[in-house]
Amino acid sequence: MSVITLLTDFGLQDGYSGVMKGVIWGIASDVQIADITHLIHPQNIIEGALALGRTAMFFPSGTIHVGVVDPGVGSKRRPIAARLGRQYFVGPDNGLCSVMMRQALEERGKVAFVHLDKPQFWLKEVSNVFHGRDIFSPAAAHLALGVPLDELGSRIDDPVVVSIPGPTRTIDGVRGEVIIVDHFGNLSTNLTRSEIDAISTPSVKIAGRTIHGLVGTFGDARPGELVAFIGEADDLSIAVVEGSAAQALGVGVGEQVEVLRKLP
Amino acid sequence: MSVITLLTDFGLQDGYSGVMKGVIWGIASDVQIADITHLIHPQNIIEGALALGRTAMFFPSGTIHVGVVDPGVGSKRRPIAARLGRQYFVGPDNGLCSVMMRQALEERGKVAFVHLDKPQFWLKEVSNVFHGRDIFSPAAAHLALGVPLDELGSRIDDPVVVSIPGPTRTIDGVRGEVIIVDHFGNLSTNLTRSEIDAISTPSVKIAGRTIHGLVGTFGDARPGELVAFIGEADDLSIAVVEGSAAQALGVGVGEQVEVLRKLP
Amino acid sequence: MSVITLLTDFGLQDGYSGVMKGVIWGIASDVQIADITHLIHPQNIIEGALALGRTAMFFPSGTIHVGVVDPGVGSKRRPIAARLGRQYFVGPDNGLCSVMMRQALEERGKVAFVHLDKPQFWLKEVSNVFHGRDIFSPAAAHLALGVPLDELGSRIDDPVVVSIPGPTRTIDGVRGEVIIVDHFGNLSTNLTRSEIDAISTPSVKIAGRTIHGLVGTFGDARPGELVAFIGEADDLSIAVVEGSAAQALGVGVGEQVEVLRKLP
Repeated sequence: MSVITLLTDFGLQDGYSGVMKGVIWGIASDVQIADITHLIHPQNIIEGALALGRTAMFFPSGTIHVGVVDPGVGSKRRPIAARLGRQYFVGPDNGLCSVMMRQALEERGKVAFVHLDKPQFWLKEVSNVFHGRDIFSPAAAHLALGVPLDELGSRIDDPVVVSIPGPTRTIDGVRGEVIIVDHFGNLSTNLTRSEIDAISTPSVKIAGRTIHGLVGTFGDARPGELVAFIGEADDLSIAVVEGSAAQALGVGVGEQVEVLRKLP
Repeated sequence: MSVITLLTDFGLQDGYSGVMKGVIWGIASDVQIADITHLIHPQNIIEGALALGRTAMFFPSGTIHVGVVDPGVGSKRRPIAARLGRQYFVGPDNGLCSVMMRQALEERGKVAFVHLDKPQFWLKEVSNVFHGRDIFSPAAAHLALGVPLDELGSRIDDPVVVSIPGPTRTIDGVRGEVIIVDHFGNLSTNLTRSEIDAISTPSVKIAGRTIHGLVGTFGDARPGELVAFIGEADDLSIAVVEGSAAQALGVGVGEQVEVLRKLP
Repeated sequence: MSVITLLTDFGLQDGYSGVMKGVIWGIASDVQIADITHLIHPQNIIEGALALGRTAMFFPSGTIHVGVVDPGVGSKRRPIAARLGRQYFVGPDNGLCSVMMRQALEERGKVAFVHLDKPQFWLKEVSNVFHGRDIFSPAAAHLALGVPLDELGSRIDDPVVVSIPGPTRTIDGVRGEVIIVDHFGNLSTNLTRSEIDAISTPSVKIAGRTIHGLVGTFGDARPGELVAFIGEADDLSIAVVEGSAAQALGVGVGEQVEVLRKLP
C-alpha cells in the first residue's frame, strides 16, 4: 500500500487534517496515512522544512509527503509536487521541501518539480484559503494511485528554496545555533556529527555555560545534568537529563552554540 | 475499504480515542479510521455539531462518523445511528449530528434514525460512562461490515436537534455572530457567501472595527492587517494576516458581526 | 490485518511518533497503527504502565503494543519484547508493561519475555537516543509479519517490574489513592469495583469532602455536583458533573481517598 504523510501548522482542534484524510481516501481508498505533525508554529516554513528533513527519509520509498505551512495560500505562489530522490513532496512552492531536496541532491537522487496546474486533479471547487484540502490532498492521492508526476502539472526548474542557517568555522572550533527545541526541551543544533568528530576533546559553550565532552547516552550522566550528545538526526544536541535544557538555560531557536577544541 | 471517523471531546492524553480504534478493528479489521478532532471543548455539543458539519461531507460516500460529545452518557438519552444523505452518524441522541442532518435534508438526501437498542452489536460489558467505547464504536464497526442500519436498532423519528444561531436581516445589511475560533485565531461566522454576495460593496463591523470590503486571498493584504474573506466553508470569516484575529480583537464565539452595504 | 499501537511520552510536535509509523510501514506495509497517547508525562513509567493497562485489552488478540517511556534509552537497560496473554509488548525493560503483565497472569495467559538482542531485526543504524524508531518499531513490524517472539531475541525471565500502589484495608473500609487525572479532570483511583461492592452504603472521603453513596451515571446528579462512581476501568472514580474534580478539589495523582462503610 502507498503511504501519504501530513505535516502542517493546522493544529489539532479544527479537523483540518482529518478532512485531508477524507479527501485522500475518497480518491485512493487503500492509502496508509501518517500524521507527522500538525503543530508547526503557524507560518514557520523553516521549522516545517527541518521537520520534514528529519522524518521523511524514514518512510518507505515512494512515500508522498504532503506539507502545508502556507502563508501565501491563494496568492500567486504556485502549488507544486516534486520527486526528491526516493520520496515525493506535495505542497506550496515556498521552500517547505528545501531540506528534503538538499538531502536528495546529496544522495544523488533524482529531483524533479512540477507546477500543479491541472485542475482535473483537484477538488471541483477550490477555496482560496485551504489548498491543503482542495489541491494538495487530491494531487497526492492521484500520485498514490499511480498518476505520473508529469501528468499532474508542468515541469518547473525554479522552485523556491529557503536557506537553513549553517555553521561557521572559527579559529579554535565551530559555531552554530539551536535550530529545534523539542517536546522534552532538548536542543538540536545545525552542527553535525562530522563537524564534531573533527574536533578533539570538544567543549560546548551555550548561554554562558560550558559542557566538557559529549556523553554517549543519557545513562552516562545523572538526572538534572546538562549534557551534550549526538542526537537522533546525527546533530549536536544539548539536554538536561530527565529535564528541559530549554528551560534550564532559558534559550530557544537561534541561540548561539560554540564548540571549542581543548587547548593543549 | 470503509472509513470511520472519530470526533470527540476526549482530549489526547488518556487513550480514550485509541481504545475506540482497538474496538473497531477487533470487529472490522480492514476499516480506515481518521481522527477529525478530540479537542471539542468538554460537553460542547454545538461546537461538535459545527465541526462535523464542516468536515463530514469531504469524506467518501458511506463514511461512518462516530461523534462523542456526550454529557448525558449513561442516562436516558438514547444511543443512535443515522443515515444522513451519503454519510452515517453514530453517537448520542443530543443534537451532535444536527448540522449534518440539515445538510442532508437540504441536498434531499435520505435521512433515517435508529435507536441503538440491540445489545448484540455492543461490547459484552457496557460501562455507564464510556459509550464511545462500549456502544458507538462496535455499532459503527458493524455498520462498516455491512449490517443494515435497521438491524442495529429500532427506527425513531424524533431525534434531538440543536439549533445553531442564524443570521438576522437588518435595514442596511445582515447581522450574525462568530461561531468558531480556529487554531490560527481566525473567526468563522454564521454568515454565508450567498448572504454576503447579496450586499453590494459590503463593510464588516466587529468589536468596534470596520473592515471595508473583502479580500480574495491573504496575499491581497499585508501581514498584520485585519481582513474579511469567504472562508473554506463558504462562510464570512475574519482574520489577521499571519496573526490572530481572536487575540487582536479580544473576541470569541458569540461575538456579534454586522455586514453593511455601502450607502450611496 | 495486524494492529500495532504506539504509546509514548514524545508529545505531538516533533514527528517522533510519525517517524515510527514510517519505519513500521517500511517493513510491514499492511499493518494498522493506532496512537494510544503520546502525552504521557516525560519519563513517567507508572503513568504509561497504567495507560497501557487500561487500553491494551480492548485491542484485537495479537495486537502489538509499542510503549516508549524510556529514561534509560541507550544505557544498559535492555530492549525487550513480550507475549502477555493475548497481546504483545515491545519497548524498554523498565516496567512499562507491568500492568499488562499482571493482567495476563491474572487471566492465566501465557507470558514470555525476550531480550531484543538480534540487530538483524533493527534499523541498520541505531542511535543512542531513539530506540523507539531504531529498535522497537522495526522489532514490532517483524513480529507483525509473523517472526516468532523467540527469533527476535533471547528468552529472559527477569523483566523489570514496577509496583503500582495498592489499597489498604482499614477498620471501617478501605484506603487508596488517585492514580490518574484525566482530560476532564476526573479522578481514577486504585480502588476497584469489587472492593467497593464489599462495603455497604459506602461514603467516599477525599480532600476533606465526603461523598455519600455512588451514582450510577452522571445523569443521576446535577451539573457541578461532586460524585463518586465506578469508572470505565471498573475503578472507583470521582468527578464533578460537567466540570473538573481535579480543579474543584485542588488535587492530583497521589491524593488519598478513603471509603467508609456507614456506621449502623
